[in-house]
Amino acid sequence: MLGDNQYGKAETHVVRVTKKDGKGARHDLKDLNVSIALAGDFADAHLTGDNSKVVPTDTQKNTVFAFASEPMGEIEDFGIRLARHFVGEFASVSRARVAIEEFAWERIHDHAFVRASGERRLATVTCTDAGTWVVGGVADVVLLKSTGSEFHGYIKDRYTTLQETTDRVMATSLTARWRFRDARAEWSESFPAVRHALLDTFASKHSLSLQQTLYEMGKAVLEARPEVAEVRLVMPNKHHFVVDLSPFDLANPNEVFYASDRPYGLIEGTVTRDDAPDAGLAW
Amino acid sequence: MLGDNQYGKAETHVVRVTKKDGKGARHDLKDLNVSIALAGDFADAHLTGDNSKVVPTDTQKNTVFAFASEPMGEIEDFGIRLARHFVGEFASVSRARVAIEEFAWERIHDHAFVRASGERRLATVTCTDAGTWVVGGVADVVLLKSTGSEFHGYIKDRYTTLQETTDRVMATSLTARWRFRDARAEWSESFPAVRHALLDTFASKHSLSLQQTLYEMGKAVLEARPEVAEVRLVMPNKHHFVVDLSPFDLANPNEVFYASDRPYGLIEGTVTRDDAPDAGLAW
Amino acid sequence: MLGDNQYGKAETHVVRVTKKDGKGARHDLKDLNVSIALAGDFADAHLTGDNSKVVPTDTQKNTVFAFASEPMGEIEDFGIRLARHFVGEFASVSRARVAIEEFAWERIHDHAFVRASGERRLATVTCTDAGTWVVGGVADVVLLKSTGSEFHGYIKDRYTTLQETTDRVMATSLTARWRFRDARAEWSESFPAVRHALLDTFASKHSLSLQQTLYEMGKAVLEARPEVAEVRLVMPNKHHFVVDLSPFDLANPNEVFYASDRPYGLIEGTVTRDDAPDAGLAW
Amino acid sequence: MLGDNQYGKAETHVVRVTKKDGKGARHDLKDLNVSIALAGDFADAHLTGDNSKVVPTDTQKNTVFAFASEPMGEIEDFGIRLARHFVGEFASVSRARVAIEEFAWERIHDHAFVRASGERRLATVTCTDAGTWVVGGVADVVLLKSTGSEFHGYIKDRYTTLQETTDRVMATSLTARWRFRDARAEWSESFPAVRHALLDTFASKHSLSLQQTLYEMGKAVLEARPEVAEVRLVMPNKHHFVVDLSPFDLANPNEVFYASDRPYGLIEGTVTRDDAPDAGLAW
Repeated sequence: MLGDNQYGKAETHVVRVTKKDGKGARHDLKDLNVSIALAGDFADAHLTGDNSKVVPTDTQKNTVFAFASEPMGEIEDFGIRLARHFVGEFASVSRARVAIEEFAWERIHDHAFVRASGERRLATVTCTDAGTWVVGGVADVVLLKSTGSEFHGYIKDRYTTLQETTDRVMATSLTARWRFRDARAEWSESFPAVRHALLDTFASKHSLSLQQTLYEMGKAVLEARPEVAEVRLVMPNKHHFVVDLSPFDLANPNEVFYASDRPYGLIEGTVTRDDAPDAGLAW
Repeated sequence: MLGDNQYGKAETHVVRVTKKDGKGARHDLKDLNVSIALAGDFADAHLTGDNSKVVPTDTQKNTVFAFASEPMGEIEDFGIRLARHFVGEFASVSRARVAIEEFAWERIHDHAFVRASGERRLATVTCTDAGTWVVGGVADVVLLKSTGSEFHGYIKDRYTTLQETTDRVMATSLTARWRFRDARAEWSESFPAVRHALLDTFASKHSLSLQQTLYEMGKAVLEARPEVAEVRLVMPNKHHFVVDLSPFDLANPNEVFYASDRPYGLIEGTVTRDDAPDAGLAW
Repeated sequence: MLGDNQYGKAETHVVRVTKKDGKGARHDLKDLNVSIALAGDFADAHLTGDNSKVVPTDTQKNTVFAFASEPMGEIEDFGIRLARHFVGEFASVSRARVAIEEFAWERIHDHAFVRASGERRLATVTCTDAGTWVVGGVADVVLLKSTGSEFHGYIKDRYTTLQETTDRVMATSLTARWRFRDARAEWSESFPAVRHALLDTFASKHSLSLQQTLYEMGKAVLEARPEVAEVRLVMPNKHHFVVDLSPFDLANPNEVFYASDRPYGLIEGTVTRDDAPDAGLAW
Repeated sequence: MLGDNQYGKAETHVVRVTKKDGKGARHDLKDLNVSIALAGDFADAHLTGDNSKVVPTDTQKNTVFAFASEPMGEIEDFGIRLARHFVGEFASVSRARVAIEEFAWERIHDHAFVRASGERRLATVTCTDAGTWVVGGVADVVLLKSTGSEFHGYIKDRYTTLQETTDRVMATSLTARWRFRDARAEWSESFPAVRHALLDTFASKHSLSLQQTLYEMGKAVLEARPEVAEVRLVMPNKHHFVVDLSPFDLANPNEVFYASDRPYGLIEGTVTRDDAPDAGLAW
C-alpha cells in the first residue's frame, strides 16, 4: 500500500541581481536556495510508472528561475508565489511546500558584496486549496555567553559524574522556526525583529538551564511580534569545558575552555501562543 | 505556553572491542554513534529553571558508555536496553528515543579493520510505559544503474524544457527506514535481508520513474520480510547528464556523463503493509 | 630511507575569555583552532619505535591550553610564543610550525557574542634556531561583484564553446596568505588593513580576468602595507551562469543566475615585493 | 612582481559508462573527479588582463569530457593523455598538472552498482616538455587496530599528563601518495598491490609509535613494488580514549572507547628508495 509521498526539486541555487536605476550603477543581491516538494495524485507514477500527472522536477527548477525574473520581494513572498503556482496550475498537485534559505551579503561597493555570515534566513510556505501557511526561521546562529549561566539541582544517579556549576559558558548554534498567524505579514520588518528578540534574550536573561533560555527566547518572540503564533527552537549545547590547568600549577578561573565537537546536548522545544490558530499543514 | 519538547545527548561516539577468547587474539568491533532524546515532565526546567526532574545529558552519555561494557548485541538490542532504562528509571521521563548509527568495518587481521563503506546502518528505538517501537534503517547507500531507466509521458507546460528519454542513468543516495511489527525480531538476520531486497530491486527492476523504483523497493522489503510493517524511503535523484559532445564532432551514445551536485530531485515515499499495526510513536 | 617528516597536534580548539575589570562585567573572547607541527631529530621513532626524543602530541595540546592562561595577544603573538617554546625547550625539535585559525565573534552584550562570519583569520609561525617567520592570512572570504567583470580574447581551439562576455558576475571564496618581512609588526592594525585592501580592490577595479583581479589585489596589499613582503592568493572562480529564460519568452539582462558548485575555475598566484627578503622556511 | 601562478578547472566530475559487448548488456563504470592546473606564460593575463595566451577553464572541462569519450584506461593513463595534450597543444602552457580522484563502485548487476567505500584512488600527473611525472595515491582509508600498539618512553616535561601505555587502540584515516620511477607502469596491477602492502603492514606489524608504523608502511611499499621510488604518508592519529568506568564500579579492560574528533595527532612522513631518481616536478 502506498502511503505518504512527495517529490520535488531540491536546492535550486538562484542568485538575483536587481539593478535599481536605469544606469544600473547600484545593484541589489538576493541569494537563495529553493527546495520544492509536491504532494497529490501521484499514485500512478509509483504503481505503474505512468507519469501523466507528474510535473518534472526539471520544470520546477525552470519555474524558480522564471519567477526570479520578476521582482522577488522577501523570501516569504517568493515562496508564496511559487507554492500557489503549483497548486493552482496542476490538478494533480494538492499540496506544494516551498522551503527557501537565504544567504546574507553585505555591501562593499555599489555592485560588490561580501558574504556576511554563516547564518541563513529560512522560509517555508505550504499551500493547498484550503489555505497557505508560512513559517519563518533562521539557522546556524552561533551564540555564546561567557557567564550568566548555571546548571545544578538535577537528578543524580549511579551514572552521574557531572559537577554542578553556578558559572559556565553556554554556547549553541541556534535554529529557530516560527509560524505566522497567517500568510500576510510585514516580512521585511518581522525577520530582524524576531532575530533580535532571540539574540537579546539569549544574551541578557540569566540562565539556570538551556531549557529555560530556550523557553524565554520563544516567549520573547511571541511578546514582541503579534504576527507570530508559535516558535520552535533547536539548540545544541555546544559544550565548552573548563580546562584543568592544576597539573601545571596554573589557575583557571573560567578563562580557558576546550570547545568540544561531540557529543553535545540537544535541546528542542516549542513555545505557542494560547490563542494560536491551528497549525494545519504549516510544519 | 510550552509545547512539545525533548532533550538529550546527541552523537556519543562509542567504539566497543570484544575479545572473543581468553587470549584475546581475535577481536570484534562495534562502532556506534548514539543519540538520545527524552520527553516527559520537564516543564519546570523550561519555566523556572528548576532542574530537579532533569537527567543531565552528561549522565546519558555516561550511561551509554557503561551499558557498552556489557555485551551489546545488535544496535536494535542496545537501543532497546538504553531506551527502557531511561523510561524505567526516571519518573519524569515518559518517552525515550534512542537513535543509533553504526559504521561498518571489514576485518583485515585478527585485530585490525578497515572502514568498509560510507553507508551507515540505523536503528531508532522509542519507548514509553505503553510500549517499545523499533525502526531499522540504512543511510547513504549510493546506487547507480547505467541503463534500464526511462522517463517520459509527464506533464508539459510553458516551463518545460526537459527532453523525454527511454534510456538514462539513474543514481541515488538511498536512505531507507523500516518499522518493525514489534520489538522482537532477528535483527542480525533482518538487516542484510532488507538491504539486499532494496538493492536487488533497484538493480533488476526496469524503471519508468524514480517513484516507481522507490515503490517497488519498498514492496520488495515487505514481501521478503514479514517482520517489517512499513518502509519509508528517501531517494535524491542524483542527476547524471549526458554531455553534448557534438560541438567536438564526437558521438555520445549514453557513455559520458556529467555528475551534477545541485539541484537534485528528491523523491520521498512510504510503502505500508495492509494489515500494519498502528505506527504509534515509532517515527 | 626516511625523508622529510613532521608531527604534531592538530586542531586544538581553545576558547579564551578575558575578564577586563575586577568585577568581570565585560568579557572579551578569543576563539582559536591551533595546529602544531614539529620537525627535527625523530628518526629513531620512525626506525625503531624509540620515542625518547618525542614530545607527545598530548603534551603539545596541554601546552596550548597552559599558554592560553596568560594574555594571548594577537594570534601572531600567540603562535610566536608557542613555536619558540618548542624549539627552545627540546633539543630534538629543530623546527616548529604553529598554524592558527581564528573565528570572529561580534559582541551582542557585555558577555554574550554571536559568530560574526564564516571567514577565518589565519597565522602561521615557523621557528628554528635561525629565525622566526610569520605568515598572516584570511580564509573563506566569499566575494561577488555583479558587474565590472569581462572575459574575452582567450585562445579558441576545437574544444572551445565558451562565449566571450563583457559583463559577467565574478564570485570567489578568497583565501589569501601574506608573508611578513619579519616577526615584528603591528598585527592588530595590519590584519584589517590587508583585508580592506583585498576587498576594496576586488570591488573597485574593473576586471578583464580573474587573474588580473588577483594580481591587483596582491599589489594593493604590498602598496598599502610595507610590513608585507609577499602575498599568495587562491581564488576559485565560483561560476554564476546566466539562466537562459528565452524558452519562456522572458528576457534575462544579467539578472537571474544559477550558482554552480562544481566544476569551478581555480586561480592561484603570488605577488612579491621586488626587494622581498628570502622566504626561508616561511611557507 | 608576479611570482608563481597557475590556474585551471577543478573538480570536473565525469562518469564514464563502457558497454562491453554489442548488445550492451554488461556495463563498466568509471567515476572520476578531474582537476587541472596549468602554468606557463600567463603574465599578461595578470598584468594587463590580456587573455590571448589563456586556455579558458571552460575549455579544459570540455576537453576532459571529450577525452572521456575514448577508452580511458586507468586514471594514470587518462591523466597522462590530458596533461600531455595541454603542454603539446598550447605554446603558452609550460606545465600541466592533472589530479584525478576515482570513486570505487561495486557491481550488483550487469549494469547496476553500489558505491563501495569512502576511499578514493588518486593520481597526479605533471607534464612539461622535459618529462612526465606520475604520483599514485589513496585517500581516506580509515584503519583501526584494537591491540598491538604501544606508546611510551617519550619526553616528559611540566606539561605532560599523558599516561604511558603498552596496549592501545590505534586508528587513522590514511592518505598515501607514491611517486613512480617513470611514467610507465602496470597501473592496474600496481594500485591494489601498494594498497595491500600499506594495509597489511598497518595490521600485522607491532607498533611502538605511529611514526614507526608509518615508516614500516612506506618501507613495505618500496620492498614490494620496484616501480615506486618514494612514498609520502599522512596519518592523523584518531584518538580512541579508554572510558573511565570506575565511577560506576565497572571494569574497562580496553573494551569501551570514546572516539574523539578533535584535536588529533597528525603524523606526516616520507620514505624514499636510496637510488630514487630526482623527484623533479612530481609533487
